[in-house]
Amino acid sequence: MLHCAGCTWLSVTELAVVNFDLEEYLSARRSIVDRALERYLVRQPGCAESIWRAMRYGLFPGGKRIRPILTLAAGELFAAKQKELLPFACAVEMIHAYSLIHDDLPALDDDDLRRGTPTAHKVFGEGMALLAGDALLTEAFHLISGPATRSQEPQVVLELIHELGRAAGVAGLVGGQAIDLETEKKNAAISTVEAMHGRKTGALIVASLKIGARVGAAKPLEVKRICRYGEAVGLAFQIADDLLDSAGESGGEESGRKEEKKATYPSMVGVPQAKERLRELMVLAVKSVVPFGFKAEALKAIAIYVAQRALRDGTNSRRQEMNC
Amino acid sequence: MLHCAGCTWLSVTELAVVNFDLEEYLSARRSIVDRALERYLVRQPGCAESIWRAMRYGLFPGGKRIRPILTLAAGELFAAKQKELLPFACAVEMIHAYSLIHDDLPALDDDDLRRGTPTAHKVFGEGMALLAGDALLTEAFHLISGPATRSQEPQVVLELIHELGRAAGVAGLVGGQAIDLETEKKNAAISTVEAMHGRKTGALIVASLKIGARVGAAKPLEVKRICRYGEAVGLAFQIADDLLDSAGESGGEESGRKEEKKATYPSMVGVPQAKERLRELMVLAVKSVVPFGFKAEALKAIAIYVAQRALRDGTNSRRQEMNC
Repeated sequence: MLHCAGCTWLSVTELAVVNFDLEEYLSARRSIVDRALERYLVRQPGCAESIWRAMRYGLFPGGKRIRPILTLAAGELFAAKQKELLPFACAVEMIHAYSLIHDDLPALDDDDLRRGTPTAHKVFGEGMALLAGDALLTEAFHLISGPATRSQEPQVVLELIHELGRAAGVAGLVGGQAIDLETEKKNAAISTVEAMHGRKTGALIVASLKIGARVGAAKPLEVKRICRYGEAVGLAFQIADDLLDSAGESGGEESGRKEEKKATYPSMVGVPQAKERLRELMVLAVKSVVPFGFKAEALKAIAIYVAQRALRDGTNSRRQEMNC
Repeated sequence: MLHCAGCTWLSVTELAVVNFDLEEYLSARRSIVDRALERYLVRQPGCAESIWRAMRYGLFPGGKRIRPILTLAAGELFAAKQKELLPFACAVEMIHAYSLIHDDLPALDDDDLRRGTPTAHKVFGEGMALLAGDALLTEAFHLISGPATRSQEPQVVLELIHELGRAAGVAGLVGGQAIDLETEKKNAAISTVEAMHGRKTGALIVASLKIGARVGAAKPLEVKRICRYGEAVGLAFQIADDLLDSAGESGGEESGRKEEKKATYPSMVGVPQAKERLRELMVLAVKSVVPFGFKAEALKAIAIYVAQRALRDGTNSRRQEMNC
């Protein structure tokens, strides 16, 4: 059960997640996503052994699967069928996995470890890791343009591919990585850091949610609310990761990152102000989906979970994590 | 005018390109493709200066633009409208450009020069070159899923995105690069080298043609013929490039490549046998499109041009190139 100790800004009505079992929800959705990824990532005849292994290494066991779970959660809000959501959810996760493989390469973050295990290039070499990332990015678009999404209206599928392309490209994820690379070791403005996070982390999270809502035929105003939630959660997610990294207790996706080179939120405004911003974003995210009522329990709980990871006192972290 | 000195296997009727001005055809189509690329590659608000410059550096001035020209040529065969072909032709070229940027990186071929100028990572650094490649690949799918292809049937656009994804992914281009990486410095079988080329070079060339034919609503048998042409031209293109590289007079796209590491056709079977295979492929390509009659002049002339580059005697190369 989720115990939301850090949310005194929210009324009980707005929160409405006190009895929501987030741990069970995330675990069940993660299994569903994992099974779907196994189903969709099919080894092609003649596919070289090494790239196949490198692609799988980047995709399994994976992390929290938060992006595809957000696609499912947003879709569930509008009664979308899970089997119609899953190809898109898996494409989002493939893009996330590719971005991590490339981000870890010596040319970018030069990380040896991710989630406590050696990064792809440490296991398969830089060349094969680079190609495995390229292959996962390409496979994402190949997947959602093919038979897996046949039950959807072709025009809707095209719009969702376009949305994912925008979020993953130079206006989103890759553009954010480029700003990140440029702002290394420089005194960037906090607005630049927020813009960078909005692209590098936020764009794909917003797209995950937007795609789920669109598969569920959400109305424009509803999509707008979901996007507002996504923008807040996306930035919260990055600030929380950076806070955990700076406290050296992450074990998260950025673990092992050469933090000292980076312009991060906590390094620029200090830990207390970063935590304050994180709280604001959590409240903003939750408030964005309040109009959906009890149906938005999962989205609210996820927003609180994302922030709470970094807002808890170090001494209580482990115990509270068990409750979450 | 094209003078086809090396084509005694083909009758005049089959060839039917003696008066076709290929030089003029390629030059006009290249200009059309360049203008379309300029139109489609729009700088997004807030896009970092460096990645924008790196993307453009990878795309302009470009090489022969043979892949998008093949899309146009295949489409013209079936009276497809040029403006309907161009978004797909440009997406193909963006994917080609990304693959060259990544291929040149130290993690793969480690090339300092391409087409006689410094490679992208030499100018922008490895990290930015990696991201520029990622951005171009993503932009290809973003482009053809958006307004640029709105005049086409959505279901057809989806099929073409799927086709391009297959050709660019692990079953095609990236898979071929992985085989290439694995076969370095090993005694690979010639069948492995052909399979590798079929993916690394052939798959995108076949897709370029297939997409053009499909935009022109070609019938399945016609698409099959176009694919047979593409498979032959794709392999011929790679063998010709390798022959030119081995003769040290390429100036071609692979110029500067660390050839000695690679398992290439000429290095495995010798130059005379590689030239013999190149002639066979040229004949096969031309014969594949003979049923289309005079309409296929451009495709025939391109197949002969691809092979002739490497079949001519060194002493006559420059003079004959002027005629071509």
